[in-house]
Amino acid sequence: MIVVMERGATPEQVQHMAQRVEALGLKAHIIQGTERTVIAAIGEERAETKESLASGAGVADVVPILAPYKVASREVKQEPTQVCALGLKVGAGSIGIIAGPCSVESEEQILSTARAVKAAGATALRGGAFKPRTSPYSFQGMKEAGLKLLALAREQTGLAIVTEVMATEDVALVTDYSDVLQVGARNMQNYRLLESVGRAGKPVLLKRGPSATMEELLLAAEYILNEGNLNVMLCERGIRTFESHTRFTLPLASVPYLHHKTHLPIVIDPSHGTGHTYLVPDMAAASIAAGADGLILEVHPDPEQAMSDGYQSLNFAQFNETMAKCRAVATALGKRI
Amino acid sequence: MIVVMERGATPEQVQHMAQRVEALGLKAHIIQGTERTVIAAIGEERAETKESLASGAGVADVVPILAPYKVASREVKQEPTQVCALGLKVGAGSIGIIAGPCSVESEEQILSTARAVKAAGATALRGGAFKPRTSPYSFQGMKEAGLKLLALAREQTGLAIVTEVMATEDVALVTDYSDVLQVGARNMQNYRLLESVGRAGKPVLLKRGPSATMEELLLAAEYILNEGNLNVMLCERGIRTFESHTRFTLPLASVPYLHHKTHLPIVIDPSHGTGHTYLVPDMAAASIAAGADGLILEVHPDPEQAMSDGYQSLNFAQFNETMAKCRAVATALGKRI
Amino acid sequence: MIVVMERGATPEQVQHMAQRVEALGLKAHIIQGTERTVIAAIGEERAETKESLASGAGVADVVPILAPYKVASREVKQEPTQVCALGLKVGAGSIGIIAGPCSVESEEQILSTARAVKAAGATALRGGAFKPRTSPYSFQGMKEAGLKLLALAREQTGLAIVTEVMATEDVALVTDYSDVLQVGARNMQNYRLLESVGRAGKPVLLKRGPSATMEELLLAAEYILNEGNLNVMLCERGIRTFESHTRFTLPLASVPYLHHKTHLPIVIDPSHGTGHTYLVPDMAAASIAAGADGLILEVHPDPEQAMSDGYQSLNFAQFNETMAKCRAVATALGKRI
Amino acid sequence: MIVVMERGATPEQVQHMAQRVEALGLKAHIIQGTERTVIAAIGEERAETKESLASGAGVADVVPILAPYKVASREVKQEPTQVCALGLKVGAGSIGIIAGPCSVESEEQILSTARAVKAAGATALRGGAFKPRTSPYSFQGMKEAGLKLLALAREQTGLAIVTEVMATEDVALVTDYSDVLQVGARNMQNYRLLESVGRAGKPVLLKRGPSATMEELLLAAEYILNEGNLNVMLCERGIRTFESHTRFTLPLASVPYLHHKTHLPIVIDPSHGTGHTYLVPDMAAASIAAGADGLILEVHPDPEQAMSDGYQSLNFAQFNETMAKCRAVATALGKRI
Repeated sequence: MIVVMERGATPEQVQHMAQRVEALGLKAHIIQGTERTVIAAIGEERAETKESLASGAGVADVVPILAPYKVASREVKQEPTQVCALGLKVGAGSIGIIAGPCSVESEEQILSTARAVKAAGATALRGGAFKPRTSPYSFQGMKEAGLKLLALAREQTGLAIVTEVMATEDVALVTDYSDVLQVGARNMQNYRLLESVGRAGKPVLLKRGPSATMEELLLAAEYILNEGNLNVMLCERGIRTFESHTRFTLPLASVPYLHHKTHLPIVIDPSHGTGHTYLVPDMAAASIAAGADGLILEVHPDPEQAMSDGYQSLNFAQFNETMAKCRAVATALGKRI
Repeated sequence: MIVVMERGATPEQVQHMAQRVEALGLKAHIIQGTERTVIAAIGEERAETKESLASGAGVADVVPILAPYKVASREVKQEPTQVCALGLKVGAGSIGIIAGPCSVESEEQILSTARAVKAAGATALRGGAFKPRTSPYSFQGMKEAGLKLLALAREQTGLAIVTEVMATEDVALVTDYSDVLQVGARNMQNYRLLESVGRAGKPVLLKRGPSATMEELLLAAEYILNEGNLNVMLCERGIRTFESHTRFTLPLASVPYLHHKTHLPIVIDPSHGTGHTYLVPDMAAASIAAGADGLILEVHPDPEQAMSDGYQSLNFAQFNETMAKCRAVATALGKRI
Repeated sequence: MIVVMERGATPEQVQHMAQRVEALGLKAHIIQGTERTVIAAIGEERAETKESLASGAGVADVVPILAPYKVASREVKQEPTQVCALGLKVGAGSIGIIAGPCSVESEEQILSTARAVKAAGATALRGGAFKPRTSPYSFQGMKEAGLKLLALAREQTGLAIVTEVMATEDVALVTDYSDVLQVGARNMQNYRLLESVGRAGKPVLLKRGPSATMEELLLAAEYILNEGNLNVMLCERGIRTFESHTRFTLPLASVPYLHHKTHLPIVIDPSHGTGHTYLVPDMAAASIAAGADGLILEVHPDPEQAMSDGYQSLNFAQFNETMAKCRAVATALGKRI
Repeated sequence: MIVVMERGATPEQVQHMAQRVEALGLKAHIIQGTERTVIAAIGEERAETKESLASGAGVADVVPILAPYKVASREVKQEPTQVCALGLKVGAGSIGIIAGPCSVESEEQILSTARAVKAAGATALRGGAFKPRTSPYSFQGMKEAGLKLLALAREQTGLAIVTEVMATEDVALVTDYSDVLQVGARNMQNYRLLESVGRAGKPVLLKRGPSATMEELLLAAEYILNEGNLNVMLCERGIRTFESHTRFTLPLASVPYLHHKTHLPIVIDPSHGTGHTYLVPDMAAASIAAGADGLILEVHPDPEQAMSDGYQSLNFAQFNETMAKCRAVATALGKRI
């Protein structure tokens, strides 16, 4: 990394920092500029190293050169990773569609949705049994009863089950019933949970936190990968910005950017990313055009009656139209849904 | 609009506000809630009205019901507006491609670019002659000499010329040489300039400021429309957020959102919106899939040698590939570029 | 709440929504505007109610009137809450100072810091034993050994111990050793953890997530309060914005805003809020001037050697100066540290 | 600056970039790292240089080392600049208070306000005659008639006049009547206007744009300084973030940060920075504690009747209290208002 000294740094401070660089096991190159001095510190960059050097007297800034994530990096693994669970295939040319209601509400609701989304081409069913809710007074999900209904839907349709796990103490239970463990945006930096799902032996869908940088997202994935679980899908679901006409701002440039940096597949969530049903079909198609490896979409038999997120859910007809649009774009770009 | 009183507002404060509502020419309906009182103020909502009521004693909030823009609103004009300039057609089913260098640098540069982008399917040439630059020490553009080169390029290729005007004192000059006046992001709320281009009689490409809301963008357009010029294209070029891996964050949901609210066509700028050449082709295709009516793209014969924005410019081969990708998506969705 | 119908909503849609409002146990007032219709829904506002109505056909927007948090609200409890733990008193006129290192690193480090901050006027010692780190390859804290050192520091100085708990499975252990349980910014919406610390019977310091709204912060507090634990301090530690010259953007207007909305005391963290040692003293003084009930500050015997956050830590001399400055401001405003 | 090559960059690409660095008049040091190569480019850094190098093949990033602003830099001028206009003194230990209505509305309004704010300790009067308004349908100011009223207020009270100039064509007129030219947030990057006020020979109050970085603000100031006008005050008035409970987010860390980087004085605008009257007094006091060299505050005889910004204006009694609070803090910190 590059240690930039302040303009008025003394030769002693420069020497001191060069010695600290060497003490950290890096090689120090001192470069005297016309207006200030920089020290190039060559060798393995560790997170602590940067922090430690940044605290030095006379240091203006420390600029890392290497990415801090390792296993997630495309520099480590060139070929794209494909994550599979039953019929769901995400990445390496395959586009997987995960669809279903925000929350599991009843047997009829989840079974009818499963049949409808399967008929339209989805290969996985989403549905929340444990729901993280902003207010303690909101519906918190059906919990294990919801998981059983999801398993029933899988039995009847063959769809892979994608469902959120909120806490380490639930990981074993949720793993028993589901095919993909979803870590929600609020928990992206719940590191114990990441380690726990990393050890659970099932693929993981990791949602980006609403103010997480790309680097933080990749480092969160690294917590899972570091447990030996390489089946991680990264999910962009929108970031928090000053915009208020959408629930979040959905930055699709995350797709080509992440493809450049990592071999892990990228899934887009246009439902949370926009927060309005009428914006979902166009943004779903745009996601495919941007190169997304998968979509996760909220679908409900009767959004007006949904217990959560109805305003951003598609009904069955809207989901069919969305799928047709996405399939047309995918075909035009030589891909398959 | 709705005047929400504070929980502890006195009956006198409520009466006083109701009288102020009536004095403003609106009809006041007082609604006693279980926990607080609201006053519905029915009638034409003017910007001043909201401000004035919000200052009242005992008032917690004033919530507008109607959009503050008028002429731009789809409620006023249902059918989409198509903006045309020479062969450029943007909106109402036509997708127009505007391409060219960030800055006009030389005759050879601009003419070769014009020929290349025309061959690939563009119908307008962009190129800056007056350049707003963050630093006073950066290249500020060729000014009138640049405009003359643009006019020469039009003569040779028939492409419409899109170029930025930075100040009211330049409007006449730029209007003489160009077909579309571009108002840059930094000037989106330079109201004198908006009025001036509104009176110039040429179509306008209005770029969204990096922290402007949709409402502010539409109200800026309203300044132009209010001068009697209805040929306004809105351009999304990215917003400023915490993300630093892209130059700006490009929120494509602006496209379907704006189509819902206004009849004006929407152009996307994936070059500024991403800030990196390698992200542009995918985001251009995604823009088309999201429903954009046009694209504005930076293209340079040799981006490495560009005097500005080379890191986000396409070379000719990259532009050809981008066009092929966009055309495939457009065709798949039943549109034409 | 107010249900704003779309301009083109049909009378049937309006009637349908009015019936749904009544079915939810609210009273519906239909108000015909000149341009659109609104329905005032009067009665208790629940989180589900808003969501449910927002999904209705013909509905443009649903505007809540009441705050969704209850126990945290100043409307429910007028007098300010004071949170106490040993000598630490925060709120209701008392300003409490919590100081110490980012991480507990060694016996000498934590004991020397404890003595120094106590001598300067702090009444609580902070220090991380369980550290949430962005990278899995960073130092993760001394865990129980760190807790033991904190308890030793309390024994020697009488300072209250404030330390972070990252996971429900650690709550019992951390509760055994500490006086105040800190919930970190990354865990602000880790609802299981909030419920767990709510039941632990110790005061809680709840840090605002970097993209949490005030309402989300208060609802997170509500999860704790809802378990019967009323000793909650809210901590503003900066939000994520486009600014990159500071680690986070520290919005001190949170202090008077929260004082207006809640009876809970407000603590400011200028160390994380700025990310640079040289900005901390001025922002600490500004926090006191803004009305903060407490400060939490990173102090280290030798920041250059700190294992984490050295670049934003004060050394003992800097802490003394900061305290002098804060005390002068507090005295000028009639308060005491 | 530092040119960071991509991991897979070829030796030819490295050599090519080193040659380009030398061709730009800089000295190139090639440093072979264990995982990638960087080139240190030593010499004067110009804005174009960075852009040009960033476009090179095989280049991952270009990291500047020096600040791009020159005249504004504290590295160029160590001692703080004091800006004076009549009795207004801002910087170098003096705190200046600028107060008055958002808009000049009438003779009585402006004269009564001038007398009130002078009596409370202000040394300058603010008041808009040319008003930049988001909507074309809002009150746009009294224009020259307003300027005449401001001049009358100066005549009667001796207060310096601070008023906004929106366009180059108005600079001469506004300069005739006022003592300080204000450039509003929307015009921070209206470079022609900056150059024009730079030549007008009066002190300038330059407001930060709501999404401008510190570097952009300082470069905007550089446009003015570059015309030979060194009497520039920087004004922080809040940035646009996801927060919606305040009109903008007011980041007071700008004060110590800017003091570190520049010799120019810093003025805070808590009225726009918060957007709510009840938040202004505490944030005014916090600004002083953070080290601000001045405040600009909206004051109106009857905020409820103000034609603009009434909801964030102080009445006379509130202004008196705010001044008392600020004076107490200033005195405690050894400064004078």
